[in-house]
Amino acid sequence: MSVFFSGRYAQLEPYTPGEQPQDRRYIKLNTNESPFPPSPGVLEAVREEAGRLQLYSDPESRTVTCALAEHYGLQPDQVLVGNGSDELLNFAFMAYCDDACPALFPDVTYGFYPVFAGLNRIPMIEVPLREDFSVCIDDYLDLKGTVFLANPNAPTGLALSSAEIERMLKARPSYMHVIDEAYVDFGAESVLPLIHRFENLLVIQTFSKSRSLAGARLGFAAGQAPLIRDLNTLKYSTNPYNVNRMTSAAGTAALKEDEYYRRNARIIMENRAWTAGELKRLGFTVTDSRANFLFAACPELPGEKYYLAMKERGILVRYLKGPRLKPFVRITVGTKQQMETLIRETETLLKTEAATHA
Amino acid sequence: MSVFFSGRYAQLEPYTPGEQPQDRRYIKLNTNESPFPPSPGVLEAVREEAGRLQLYSDPESRTVTCALAEHYGLQPDQVLVGNGSDELLNFAFMAYCDDACPALFPDVTYGFYPVFAGLNRIPMIEVPLREDFSVCIDDYLDLKGTVFLANPNAPTGLALSSAEIERMLKARPSYMHVIDEAYVDFGAESVLPLIHRFENLLVIQTFSKSRSLAGARLGFAAGQAPLIRDLNTLKYSTNPYNVNRMTSAAGTAALKEDEYYRRNARIIMENRAWTAGELKRLGFTVTDSRANFLFAACPELPGEKYYLAMKERGILVRYLKGPRLKPFVRITVGTKQQMETLIRETETLLKTEAATHA
Repeated sequence: MSVFFSGRYAQLEPYTPGEQPQDRRYIKLNTNESPFPPSPGVLEAVREEAGRLQLYSDPESRTVTCALAEHYGLQPDQVLVGNGSDELLNFAFMAYCDDACPALFPDVTYGFYPVFAGLNRIPMIEVPLREDFSVCIDDYLDLKGTVFLANPNAPTGLALSSAEIERMLKARPSYMHVIDEAYVDFGAESVLPLIHRFENLLVIQTFSKSRSLAGARLGFAAGQAPLIRDLNTLKYSTNPYNVNRMTSAAGTAALKEDEYYRRNARIIMENRAWTAGELKRLGFTVTDSRANFLFAACPELPGEKYYLAMKERGILVRYLKGPRLKPFVRITVGTKQQMETLIRETETLLKTEAATHA
Repeated sequence: MSVFFSGRYAQLEPYTPGEQPQDRRYIKLNTNESPFPPSPGVLEAVREEAGRLQLYSDPESRTVTCALAEHYGLQPDQVLVGNGSDELLNFAFMAYCDDACPALFPDVTYGFYPVFAGLNRIPMIEVPLREDFSVCIDDYLDLKGTVFLANPNAPTGLALSSAEIERMLKARPSYMHVIDEAYVDFGAESVLPLIHRFENLLVIQTFSKSRSLAGARLGFAAGQAPLIRDLNTLKYSTNPYNVNRMTSAAGTAALKEDEYYRRNARIIMENRAWTAGELKRLGFTVTDSRANFLFAACPELPGEKYYLAMKERGILVRYLKGPRLKPFVRITVGTKQQMETLIRETETLLKTEAATHA
């Protein structure tokens, strides 16, 4: 850092994104991207919008906001779009936590939550997952603060039911709850319908996973209108034109071709079931993931070693740090062909390992 | 706001962006956009990139960062791109101001500076412009804190020479200086070359004005490598994938077609000179603007009234608040035809006014 850098941020530990190799030689199963390209309407919409880039984007992002509201049965003032869901998560940490109101989240979850807490100098309480890696709502009921839950959780893939989250919303009426549903379209239950009944619920979703738009950066927050006004106060104090023209056009077009993305999500879920079965056959421990990734522990190698061995074989997965996570890797679910290659290479690896240690 | 909104931000006064009417019936001279579309290579690059949107953008934005570094004779580690220059200005306020180091800027300048100070709860000192609306470097030399100067300044269009800014950098070696060169390509002198000699200088530019990419959102900061590392610490703690694939591709392509944008800037400067002359002929007070806008006071009407009268005639300009600014409007310089319409309508307006008061 420079000599001028404020002491406020001197201790900040930034987030480390997954590897994004530029040479493109790998089967990329490390950043939970979709293996499917965006739908034809998205390409067309982006291409058309490119000719108008000399004009600012609409700071209210009305077109995509209204399209989202209609799609999910909400009012436009219950929705705010962002430059990826990370931007909106940061706004939620800013809006709903402070010295008097800590951030509460599981000790194993999206690694950005502690970074947001650090960035905003907010106290945080990391609530341990249960032995089976599940989130137990009871562990949050007596705590003071704003709850942040990824549902399904990352990197475990485990999901809570809507009824469980509702129980928490009812039990903690004077605290906010931010449910991060980045992976919800792969078989978990969304709590979006609950926003009509609960003023203490903000739901955040993204177009990066099920809608094949990770490279466009589009997320959205949904909640009752006063919550969206809070977030808008922060947006208009940070970056009023946060979503560019091309991304707005891409998101609007994607919502019109929903069946394409639903079909892709179904394929991912089928491939996930097949891959989980194969990994178990090979002796892996695998959680019951409802996301587009698997959380799996190799019987022979700790996560980092399995990652290195697979990288050598041209497949990127993500290994994890922390005592409970070390045995595991997070494997994005891709196409059937990609998953077959993964299983084939893993099988070969395990045979080699067995021979070495024989 | 909601009952949950943190008291930290309860007093925040967000920025108000210029009108962006969606009906497109106006001659838009209110938000300093370019009247020229992006160059052909930009359209092509965006169109090609759209097919890869399922993959995350490169968090390091290497391609466009290296292209910028080459274009300006810098090293890649001396450049950081952002989701518009607003994002980078916010990072600079975060990085280089705190309770012990206030933000210093003119009392008349880009209206976002006080908002960034408020957002980050940073003390600020607004230094009055001189009587002729100029920034006088001497007024900053004895103050403690980080200086933020838009050069050319907005909404006055007045520019400082590189030598004047260098004098300040030398006189204040233990303080940072952030020079916001959003409008520099329309005839002012950039201090980018000074970053090699001064560790206390950060330069921020944008693709929104001279490069016809307001709707793509692309800005960049340039400074010595330790400064860029500071900003990266904040970026990776806020939004690692801050610049999407399409915008990176657009920016890279625009740099390859520099002659197109230089020619457009020359046309804007010619139209600015012509329009300033005509406005003076009609009795307006007009500053010596080096930006793609004019700061002008109508002889008959205060700014807001002139704005309303022109809006009725299908032309949008921007009026300003504050006692010293009330007589003025800010008029974006567009095509010759647009400026001819502006002058014709203004002339008619003044005749009508004169007749009414006769």
